[in-house]
Amino acid sequence: MLDFDIVEYQHRLERTKKSMNEKGIEVLLITDPANMNYLSGYDAWSFYVHQMLIVIIDEPQPVWIGRYMDAPGAKAKTWMYDENIMAYPDYYVQSEDHHPMEFIAEILEQIGQGNRVIGVEKEQYYFTAKAYEVLKEKLPNATFKDGSCLVNWVRIIKSPQEIDYIRKAAQIAERAMNAGLKSIHTGSRECDAAASIFFELIRGTEEYGGDYPSIVPMLPTGENTSTPHLTWSDQYFKEDNSVIIELAGCFKRYHCPLARTAHIGQSPEKLERLAQIVAEGIEDVMSIVKPGVVLEELEEAWRKSTRRYGIDKESRLGYSMGLNYPPDWGEHTASIRKGDQTVLEPNMTFHFIPGIWLDHYGLEMSESFRVTETGVEMFTDYPRELLIQSPFQLPDGSDGIIS
Amino acid sequence: MLDFDIVEYQHRLERTKKSMNEKGIEVLLITDPANMNYLSGYDAWSFYVHQMLIVIIDEPQPVWIGRYMDAPGAKAKTWMYDENIMAYPDYYVQSEDHHPMEFIAEILEQIGQGNRVIGVEKEQYYFTAKAYEVLKEKLPNATFKDGSCLVNWVRIIKSPQEIDYIRKAAQIAERAMNAGLKSIHTGSRECDAAASIFFELIRGTEEYGGDYPSIVPMLPTGENTSTPHLTWSDQYFKEDNSVIIELAGCFKRYHCPLARTAHIGQSPEKLERLAQIVAEGIEDVMSIVKPGVVLEELEEAWRKSTRRYGIDKESRLGYSMGLNYPPDWGEHTASIRKGDQTVLEPNMTFHFIPGIWLDHYGLEMSESFRVTETGVEMFTDYPRELLIQSPFQLPDGSDGIIS
Repeated sequence: MLDFDIVEYQHRLERTKKSMNEKGIEVLLITDPANMNYLSGYDAWSFYVHQMLIVIIDEPQPVWIGRYMDAPGAKAKTWMYDENIMAYPDYYVQSEDHHPMEFIAEILEQIGQGNRVIGVEKEQYYFTAKAYEVLKEKLPNATFKDGSCLVNWVRIIKSPQEIDYIRKAAQIAERAMNAGLKSIHTGSRECDAAASIFFELIRGTEEYGGDYPSIVPMLPTGENTSTPHLTWSDQYFKEDNSVIIELAGCFKRYHCPLARTAHIGQSPEKLERLAQIVAEGIEDVMSIVKPGVVLEELEEAWRKSTRRYGIDKESRLGYSMGLNYPPDWGEHTASIRKGDQTVLEPNMTFHFIPGIWLDHYGLEMSESFRVTETGVEMFTDYPRELLIQSPFQLPDGSDGIIS
Repeated sequence: MLDFDIVEYQHRLERTKKSMNEKGIEVLLITDPANMNYLSGYDAWSFYVHQMLIVIIDEPQPVWIGRYMDAPGAKAKTWMYDENIMAYPDYYVQSEDHHPMEFIAEILEQIGQGNRVIGVEKEQYYFTAKAYEVLKEKLPNATFKDGSCLVNWVRIIKSPQEIDYIRKAAQIAERAMNAGLKSIHTGSRECDAAASIFFELIRGTEEYGGDYPSIVPMLPTGENTSTPHLTWSDQYFKEDNSVIIELAGCFKRYHCPLARTAHIGQSPEKLERLAQIVAEGIEDVMSIVKPGVVLEELEEAWRKSTRRYGIDKESRLGYSMGLNYPPDWGEHTASIRKGDQTVLEPNMTFHFIPGIWLDHYGLEMSESFRVTETGVEMFTDYPRELLIQSPFQLPDGSDGIIS
C-alpha cells in the first residue's frame, strides 16, 4: 500500500536528520501534512484535526500521533511499526476543555523527549498559535526552535519516482485543460466548466486515477480576470469574455499546475499581444534554465524580456512545487523572484506562472518544469497562446477552439 | 455581487461586537476565512497566504488586509468602502525575511489600535504560531486575548437566507450521492465514482451552480471502511466490497453533508443489521430534537437506543455546520457529545453522523438537520439503509440499486 519503496522513506528520514543536526534540533514535531506524508507515507484527509509526526534524531522510526479513528489509516498507509502509531481519544477534538497538544506533550515526556531541543513548524497552516502555547506550557524543560520548512527544503530535489508521479499529474492536467476549454462557450456556465475540469482531474487516465488538487481550479471570467483567486460562479459565459483557467493535475499528492487564458469570440488585439509577450518571456526564461543558475537570474531574464514591451510585474514569477495538501500546492521554499539565491540543481521542479493582472483584465500562462542535468524538461505540452473559443458549442461536440 | 443583503452583514457585525464587548476585546483580528466571509462577504481561494479582517469595536466597517493581487477581489466581493481594503506587497509572501504580520502590525499602529485589547484566533488553521509571535513582538503595547471561535459562535444560528442556501446545498448533495452510487460497480474504479460525485457537486442544478465542498468526498472501500478519512484509490470495485460515501453539497460556501454506506452484491447480514440499528438510533435522536433540548441529551438518546444492541461509540456524534472553507465543514463550536451543554435554538443546523468503525469494516449513515420552532427539519430525504448495489452496471445505465 506504500506509494514509495521503504528505502526511499528511510533515505528521506536520513536527510531530515542531517538537517536537524545542522540546526541543532533533536526532536522535530511535524504538522505539515505534506511533510508527514513525505517521511511516513501517511495520506488522509484528517489534517482538520491536530496530528503530528515526531522525528527523534536518535530513533530509527518516526512516531505518528493523531485522532483515535484515524490510527487504522495510519497503520495501513505508513511504513512504521504499528507500535509507533499512537492515538488520542475523541474528547480532545475541537474542545474548549482539552487540547491534543496536552496529550502529545505527555507522550513526549513519557518517551524521554521532554527536556530536549524541539523543533516546531511555526509557519505552517495546521500548527496553530494555541498548539504552540500548550506545548510550551506542558513541556517547560524543552527548548523550542523554529523548524519551519526544514522538511520542505529536504523535499526540493525530487527522486526519479517523484518525477514520474509529476509526469503522470501532467497528463491529467492536459486532459483537464482540454475538458475545461470544451465547456467554455455561451451555452455553458462557469460551474459547468469547473465541473468538467474536476471530473477529468479526479478520473485521471485509463491507466491511473487522479487525486484531488490542493487548490480547486480557478476560473476567473470577464472583469474578474483582473484578480487571480476568485472561484467560479453559476453565470453563463458571454461572447467576448476572457477566462483564465488555472488548475493542477494531481497523482498521489504530486502536482503539475498549468494555466492558460481563453477568449470567447473575436480575439482582442491587446490581449493577443499580451499573450505573445508572455509566451516570448517564458521562452526566454526557459532557455537559460540549467543546473548552476540562480533563481533570481530567471526573474532577471523575465524582466529583460518583457520590460521592452512596458510590462512591469511586481509579484513573484513562480515557486518550487510537488507533493502537497490544501490549501496550497507550492512548497514554500524557493521562489522565482528578485533576491532568491537558490541555485538550480537537477530534479528541482517549479511552476513558472508569470500572471499579469491589470485594471480590467488579466492573463495567465504557465509552465511546470524540471531542471535536468543539462537544461529543462517541460512537464506539459500545451499551446502557449491566447486560446480563442467559438462562442457556440460545435455540433460535433468538439472543443470549439477556432484558432 | 454580494451573497447577502448589506443589512445582514451589518447585523452580523453588531452581534460580533456585542460578543467582543462581553469578552473585553476592542479589536478582533479575524483570520478564519469563514469568519472573514461571514462578516465581509469576501470569498476567494487566497487563504493560503496571510490575510485578515479587522473588526474595531468603535468603527462602523471592518478593515480587510491581504495580498496585493487579491485586493481587487476583496473590493469586488465585500460590502465595505474601497479604502477599507488594504494590501501588502508581494515580497511578504512565503518569505523568510518578511512576514505579513509585520505589515499588519504597522497598519494597526498607524490607525491608532496598537495599544488596545486585541483578540486573535489562536486555535484556527490559518493563524500560525509564527504569525502570533510577530504580532506580539511588533505590538508591544497591545494586550492579547484569545478570540478563537468568537465569530464561530455568532454564526451558530442561521438566518432565513442561510437556511435557504443550506437547502440548496442539500439538493446538490442528493444528486451527488445518486451519481456516486451509479458508478459503484465492478466495472468502475474508486476514482471514477469520486469523479462522478465531484461533477455533480460542482455543476449543481439547472437553477444554480455548486460550490466546492470544504472536504473532498470520502470513499473508503473494503477494509478501509474501518477508518473514515482515507480518500479514493484507482482500484476497481469488487463484488462484496462495502463502500462508505461521505460528501457535502455546497452552495455559496454553505454545506449540507450526507453519508451513506453501500455494499456491492449480496448484503452481508452483520452490516445490514448494523445499518438497521443506526437508522433506528437516528430516528430516536431526531424524535427529541426541539428548542430547549441540551446537545448532550441527543448523545444520551443515541446511547440509550444503541446500547441494547451492544454498540458503544466513543467518538462524537456530530457538530454544528454551515458556512466554511477547507479543511473542514464543521463550525468548531457545538458538538453532539457527552458534556456539551449547548441548548438547541431555532435555526441551529447540525450534521449528525454516528459513524461506526470496527476492526475490519465500518458503516456511516448521516443526516443534516435544522432545529425548527417546534422540532426538526431534515435537509435531505435519502433512504436510511444499507444501499445494495448490483455488481454490474445495468445496461440501461440506471443506478444499479437492487434493494
